[in-house]
Amino acid sequence: MSAPISLNVQLSDRSYPIFIGAGLLTHAEQLTTVLSARKIALITNTIVAPLYADLVIQVAKQKGVQVIEIVLPDGEIHKSLKTIAHIIDVLVANQMGRDDLIVALGGGVVGDMAGFVAACFQRGIGYIQIPTTLLSQVDSSVGGKTGVNHSGGKNLIGAFHQPKAVIIDTSVLRSLPLRELRAGMAEIIKYGMICDISFFCWLEQNVEKLLALESATLAHAIHRSCQIKAGIVARDEHEHGDRALLNFGHTFGHAIETVTAYSTWLHGEAVGAGMMMAATMSLHVGSLSVLDVERLAALLKRFDLRTDAREEVTANAAKEAMSRDKKVKAGKQRFILLRGIGEAYITADYPPAALEATLAAHLG
Amino acid sequence: MSAPISLNVQLSDRSYPIFIGAGLLTHAEQLTTVLSARKIALITNTIVAPLYADLVIQVAKQKGVQVIEIVLPDGEIHKSLKTIAHIIDVLVANQMGRDDLIVALGGGVVGDMAGFVAACFQRGIGYIQIPTTLLSQVDSSVGGKTGVNHSGGKNLIGAFHQPKAVIIDTSVLRSLPLRELRAGMAEIIKYGMICDISFFCWLEQNVEKLLALESATLAHAIHRSCQIKAGIVARDEHEHGDRALLNFGHTFGHAIETVTAYSTWLHGEAVGAGMMMAATMSLHVGSLSVLDVERLAALLKRFDLRTDAREEVTANAAKEAMSRDKKVKAGKQRFILLRGIGEAYITADYPPAALEATLAAHLG
Repeated sequence: MSAPISLNVQLSDRSYPIFIGAGLLTHAEQLTTVLSARKIALITNTIVAPLYADLVIQVAKQKGVQVIEIVLPDGEIHKSLKTIAHIIDVLVANQMGRDDLIVALGGGVVGDMAGFVAACFQRGIGYIQIPTTLLSQVDSSVGGKTGVNHSGGKNLIGAFHQPKAVIIDTSVLRSLPLRELRAGMAEIIKYGMICDISFFCWLEQNVEKLLALESATLAHAIHRSCQIKAGIVARDEHEHGDRALLNFGHTFGHAIETVTAYSTWLHGEAVGAGMMMAATMSLHVGSLSVLDVERLAALLKRFDLRTDAREEVTANAAKEAMSRDKKVKAGKQRFILLRGIGEAYITADYPPAALEATLAAHLG
Repeated sequence: MSAPISLNVQLSDRSYPIFIGAGLLTHAEQLTTVLSARKIALITNTIVAPLYADLVIQVAKQKGVQVIEIVLPDGEIHKSLKTIAHIIDVLVANQMGRDDLIVALGGGVVGDMAGFVAACFQRGIGYIQIPTTLLSQVDSSVGGKTGVNHSGGKNLIGAFHQPKAVIIDTSVLRSLPLRELRAGMAEIIKYGMICDISFFCWLEQNVEKLLALESATLAHAIHRSCQIKAGIVARDEHEHGDRALLNFGHTFGHAIETVTAYSTWLHGEAVGAGMMMAATMSLHVGSLSVLDVERLAALLKRFDLRTDAREEVTANAAKEAMSRDKKVKAGKQRFILLRGIGEAYITADYPPAALEATLAAHLG
């Protein structure tokens, strides 16, 4: 095992480390250090538990830490207040206290729910993120956004609550279905698109190595993604400004997910098509060149990611879903658009025709 | 109407004003100022709505603010995740956005739930507290503690989320049942006990005027209470230290409430008896004189507040309830005790016999 990379999310008294490396769950030095509590509630799901739960439980037991394992059903559909109530029932039944710890072992759904429980159980207790999907490793495990869905929209109920540490073991990606790996790449591409053209170029040059799970290449892609996200979060924790840049592709992406009832598109896949739509809209607004739009499309396609949702989503259904998006400010829809690859900006000021043309180009 | 008193809770970018005065809902200058949103969700209950909701709705309508009225059933038993889910359903159905506002009009139950909804709807939106009971005016509306109960304990689910403003109209106390007024006095006495002996003396001298709802006297008692609480919250928003002093009487009080299933004791009544128990324990620990214990008992009795729970609560049941209290740190129960009237301290270091003697003296 090569030495893990680490970086810090700088948030004064809520700062925390992110450790990235192959084998961090088996050579568990970092994990051993961060599991300091009397009890932990290990929150995971039916897919991940048989693969990795024992690794965490072993480390905890060696330290004399009591483990309460909570195995949730898999899937976005279970990311609900009902599941939160169930988890809290288990915590109460096991007399978890304010100084105990929650450990999230799984993808974004597990991390978002475990984080939200940590945010509101006893008005906030500590938690550790151990993300096991590429998407959660580069996005949802970092930055403290937690929450659950409501029939009216994604993550409509939630809290900002930073973890105590994030442990990213790149080896676990070997058990990840290829489709999920590809979906995770969309969020990685996003970081290049919004603020780092050289990272975007590097991605163009490393598609094959990334898909082959080449260790050092993967670790660099994840590290650079987390670094960019950590920098933005440190500047704007509660999304009053710049943090909204991280939503590039997400306004359209969420609409695709909402209209398809979170059933056929993976989040990353929807973000991929959403980024294409944001690029197309930037083109129609006049801030992005057709060459840059094509370059994004080409990279997405090399990862086998779709660039439209024509078959499943109509323009009208998407518009209706977007009107309920929580990023709507005083009734006005805001978009994250591009001035070029690596240069995103936020605007609520756009010709309606640019939006219409975008919907027409990518939706049914 | 005399000019309202105001004070500030100093929490850097989350600072907010508290306005205190007779008639603030009818001469609604402050209310008019703070109701700045496109939409408000007015959360209230079946008791308060017929009395005061129209006053708020009128002010909002004059400003062109759309009002969504949410009338909850009255009572602690409804302070649950289920009610939170219901409120969120209504907010979503009415397309409330991040820049809209929640207004809590009612006692502690309404305020805690409205605040928790504001904390977690879209990861946090603004809210205004308009407390209508004495208890909520001097305690729960100030300081940002929000939450709901769980069968395992009071406020086990919640968040710290500061309001944008607190509007305390002392005139509304005329419609408050006398029993609730008296219960509210317990929390006022608490502020004297923990850190202000001169305020305690002033209370001893003003029992009759307070019970007669004499305007200026009442406003002073509320103002001084909020001032003390605001000072403590400003020093320790998230209760890592001094803020726990505000829990004086609450460890025992919560046990009384839990054992009696929140059905026969009002919160303030339980805090009154809880303060007596904390004083008795301080006596047994050797840090408080019998004279001071008697002085507290005398003041509580003048407000017709009970000093024991002998008839309803056994020592064993109370101990069991206390072991599940969220203030238990690493398995060790902490207590807020007294070195004298006006001088509270936090300790986890006490002879078990002192606790036993206290339970024996005040419980069955």
